[in-house]
Order: sequence, then structure tokens, then C-alpha cells
Amino acid sequence: MLINVPETVVADALRGLAAAHPDLNVDVENRVIVRRDAPVTGQVALVSGGGSGHEPLHGGFVGPGMLTAACPGEVFTSPVPDQMARAAAAVDSGAGVLFIVKNYTGDVLNFDMAAELAEDEGIQIAKVLVDDDVAVTDSLYTAGRRGTGATLFVEKIAGAAAAEGQSLERVESIGRQVNESSRSFGVALSACTTPAKGSPTFDLPEGELELGVGIHGEPGRERRPMMTSGEIADFAVNAVLEDMPPRGPVLALVNGMGATPLLELYGFNAEVHRVLRERGVPVARTLVGNYVTSLDMAGASVTLCQVDEELLRLWDAPVKTPALRWGM
Amino acid sequence: MLINVPETVVADALRGLAAAHPDLNVDVENRVIVRRDAPVTGQVALVSGGGSGHEPLHGGFVGPGMLTAACPGEVFTSPVPDQMARAAAAVDSGAGVLFIVKNYTGDVLNFDMAAELAEDEGIQIAKVLVDDDVAVTDSLYTAGRRGTGATLFVEKIAGAAAAEGQSLERVESIGRQVNESSRSFGVALSACTTPAKGSPTFDLPEGELELGVGIHGEPGRERRPMMTSGEIADFAVNAVLEDMPPRGPVLALVNGMGATPLLELYGFNAEVHRVLRERGVPVARTLVGNYVTSLDMAGASVTLCQVDEELLRLWDAPVKTPALRWGM
Repeated sequence: MLINVPETVVADALRGLAAAHPDLNVDVENRVIVRRDAPVTGQVALVSGGGSGHEPLHGGFVGPGMLTAACPGEVFTSPVPDQMARAAAAVDSGAGVLFIVKNYTGDVLNFDMAAELAEDEGIQIAKVLVDDDVAVTDSLYTAGRRGTGATLFVEKIAGAAAAEGQSLERVESIGRQVNESSRSFGVALSACTTPAKGSPTFDLPEGELELGVGIHGEPGRERRPMMTSGEIADFAVNAVLEDMPPRGPVLALVNGMGATPLLELYGFNAEVHRVLRERGVPVARTLVGNYVTSLDMAGASVTLCQVDEELLRLWDAPVKTPALRWGM
Repeated sequence: MLINVPETVVADALRGLAAAHPDLNVDVENRVIVRRDAPVTGQVALVSGGGSGHEPLHGGFVGPGMLTAACPGEVFTSPVPDQMARAAAAVDSGAGVLFIVKNYTGDVLNFDMAAELAEDEGIQIAKVLVDDDVAVTDSLYTAGRRGTGATLFVEKIAGAAAAEGQSLERVESIGRQVNESSRSFGVALSACTTPAKGSPTFDLPEGELELGVGIHGEPGRERRPMMTSGEIADFAVNAVLEDMPPRGPVLALVNGMGATPLLELYGFNAEVHRVLRERGVPVARTLVGNYVTSLDMAGASVTLCQVDEELLRLWDAPVKTPALRWGM
């Protein structure tokens, strides 16, 4: 691993984030990443966070048109309530703060406690829970469905609504709509290795894959001998569409888990598009790359988000963050 | 690997690139990626290319403000002259075409032959050779220095000059200046696996690293037991600065080889910035991410480019490609 010592991995990354992105205000000690011009008068603020190891999620999505702040926890470990409460205090312009929370037990509890702390300080808080992963219900760390790739869609689209000056109630409702319109399915071709453990977090023999894996390597639906890119696309896209019958155009995120080469990811995207074409689902926009990762796991996930004209307009709106940027 | 069969990996990726990026015109059969609005009247066109497996280089850099076309070869194999000749014919507006060539024997030969073919068709061709890797002189596939991370700087900055309508002579001269002002050094923490071979291309035992590795896994300067991120940054940055004594601000590319998590890459960036600070080198801009990759190799490279005001202005100019985008 390209690290100093496991104990400083998150702090080191935050120092490196600060050095690369002068538009961000990075509080390394308290682990809060804030866009430098916050609070932004007249705008609802968006705060997200979660365990580290999924970069660029969430810190790479802080900036105009997306998150106002992000709170990274230790690797694969929820941030603590004080981080989110501190972030909320730093970014609230008086228009209120939306917490975007991936559905993992620790995150849900800690964002709830942070909301209480912030509300005690007179900050208006709303929450959107992201639970898009159709692979399994209840899993390691989760009651209900896990939150994965749809987080990117929620953060981008709700962020665009906030940037337009829409109300907290409206931004929250758009965030919920995006989550309810999104489904994901992921596949692991290898396990990942956390710095603290130094060895793979689970055992996946060479030549096998885990269908429906979680972003921390949680077990999925089943393990099978290696499949082709086309077979995996059939399985993943059909799992998503079984849960969310197609009724119009979608945004497609073809997401790398970390160690899968972009060459392979684009090839996989061709197969995802083929399956969607066969199923009669028009694709409005496609994003291919490593956005919601699991350290050095090989594999990919597919997230589809059904969009109407309004959601598509908000998706296309300008954004300026380390990992997602256009129009600015 | 997330593939169908090794034989179709490049074609599959090109189909996926076309599906994701409607702004690109992708000729899958002839392996040429062209920005859809080419030829652009009054602008010099930029054509690059090389073996596949280094994505997003070069296809991910095609678009306004950067490359006009890219020609992908088989994995780690030069494209053939016919590809570049075809690309030149597709993009030439009459203002001429600049070939940007990484210094590998096959690429150099094939771009030379393509230049002859294009010139026979009455197209004015200029060339910039990229040879920024200070690790070794002469290597597998190379006479002289290898071309690596500086390719991104040459393509972006020369592309900005072309977008302003500067002449072929001037765009070529800017491209050369960028190459001469850039140096790189790379480190492998693991080997990479090509689809055709299906096993690691070289043998790097767990717990060792290769200092000065090439982007195809070519041997570097030496092999050592694992070092910390800080020690690697010291070694890499000092190797670069030994070859190019600092004399002003630099652009810094902290580039992932493919399988190194962004969390680690940002931590490494913190150490690169520390060394530069200690050496008194101001950093004007920093780019952290997977840009010039080696399939699933773990590791990173550092590229520094000395910039004056004019090069910095061109670096900051708007760009709209799959992998690099701002201001548009």
C-alpha cells in the first residue's frame, strides 16, 4: 500500500486534498471538508459523509452545485456526530441544512445525533436516506437496503436545486425523489484490503466473483465462477430493472470499485448499454469511472436513475468539485 | 478481469466510449476517436495515440481544448500508421495537424510513417515527441527516455493554443516547450495483468516495489523492500528535480497507475507537496487521479512541469473531454 502508517491514512489524504484543491477548506484535525465560500447566502447547504475508502465519495463532491461539506470517518467506519454538527454550523446560511446519509446503521445513528446537536443550535435540518442497492435486504452494517451509487445522483441533483436557491423542503423532496428513482447492483472480482488489516477483508478465490457485493465487501446474493462482461451486465442490469420496471429515460452510472482498469470499465459500459437497449430503456446520460469505490477492490456497479425533464435539467446544471465538474 | 474475451477488449472499450460520450465520433472498426465537430475551421488539429491500457490517455482527452483525435492500439502495442493517417485526414481543417508521440520505438516509427502518408495527401504535419521519464535512458521498447505523464500536459496546453487559433508552428513550439519543461518518475507496488496474457507481466514480490517503473511495467532503477509514502515521495520528487533544477512554479500531476485507491493517492500528494515545499518549489496547480495508467498496476507517478505565465494561462483555459473538463 502507498501509505505511511495505517493510523494516519485519513489525515494524510485530507492534507493531500487540501494541497490539491485550494477551493476547499479542509479541517484535518476535525475531519470536515467545506467549500471555501460557505456559508452561501440564500442557499440550502448539503452535508454528507461516511466511512473513508470510497473516494472520491464524499470529499471529492464538495463544491458549487453539489455538496457544501463532507465528513470522512475512518476507513469503512462512520464519522462521529460532532463532525456533522460542526459541518452544519460551518455551512448554514440560515436557509437550513440537508443531511445526505447512506443507509448503514452507524451512519444513520450518527447523523441522527448530529441533527439533534445542530437543531439545538437553532439550525434547521432535513435528511435524505440513500438506500438504492437491490442486491440484498439487511446485510453486514445495514438494516434494509445499503446506500451505494445513487448517493452521487442525490448529491449532484439536490446540490443543483440548492444552488438555484430552492427551499430546504423542496431540496429534500428532490433528494428523496432521486433516491426513490434509483437502483444499484455491484459485483466484486476481488476483495479489498484496508490499511489497518493489511490483508483482504474477505476471501474471494481467483476465478470467482461475488454478485451483489456491498461497498465494504459485504456478501451479496451469490458467488459464481468468473462470468464474461456481457453476462455480468445482463445479471446486474436485470436485477436493477426487476426492482424498478423501466418507465422512461435513465441516468446510468457505470462505476468502478477501484482497481478495475478504465479500459475494462468502458467495455462493461458497452454491455450495460446493450442490455438497456434490449430492454427498451433509453439512456439520457452516462457516467463511467471510479466514483463510489471500495479501496482496491476489482469490480463494478451499475446505478440507474429514472429522470424526468426537471431531474435531467438539474443533472446537467454546472458543477465544480474535484471529481465532478462541468460548465464552470 | 471484467472482459468478454481478450481479443475484443479494445473494440469493446471503444463501443463503450461511444455509448457514454455522444460528443465523440468513434470509428470502432478503424480505431479512431474524433471529436464530433472536427475539422474545426481555422484551428490546428492535434492527433495522439499509443497502446491501449493507459486510459484515460489518449481517448479520454479528445474534445474541445485538447486532442482532436486519438488512435488506440492493441493493449501495450503501438497503433498502426493507417490509423493516424486516417485521423489526420478526418481532422485537418487546412491549418495542419500536430502529432503528439510518446517516445516508444513502435510509436515513433508508426507516427513517422503516418506523417508521410498524410503529407502525401497534402496535409501539413508537425510532431512533438514526449520523453519525460527520468528513471532510465533506453529501456524495453524505448531508445532514449520514455514518454509518460508529461503527455497530459503537452496535450492540454498545446490543445489550448490550438483552440485559440495559433499556427501549427506555434502550437508545435509550445508542445515542445512543455515536454522540455516536464519530468516524471514512477513507482510500481504491483505488476499489471494484460488481458492477452492473463497473468502479471512481470514478477514483483509482495512487499517490494520497483522504483522508476515504466508504464508497461518496464524495469526501473532498482527494486527495494516496501517504503512509506513519504520515502517514495522523497525519492520520486528528488529524482525529477535532480534532472530539472527548480526555477519557478510547477504544475504537479500525482498520477495513479490504476489500482491504487484515491485515498492513498491523496495521501501521497500530501507527501509530494511536502518535498516540494522543502525544496522551495511553488506549486501552481495540482492534478491528482488516474490519468496515465498501466491497467491494474498499483503505484503512482509524479510529473512536474515548469510553467511561465503563458503556459499556466493555457493550462487554465477551458477544456471539455471525458477525463479532463473545466470551464465548459
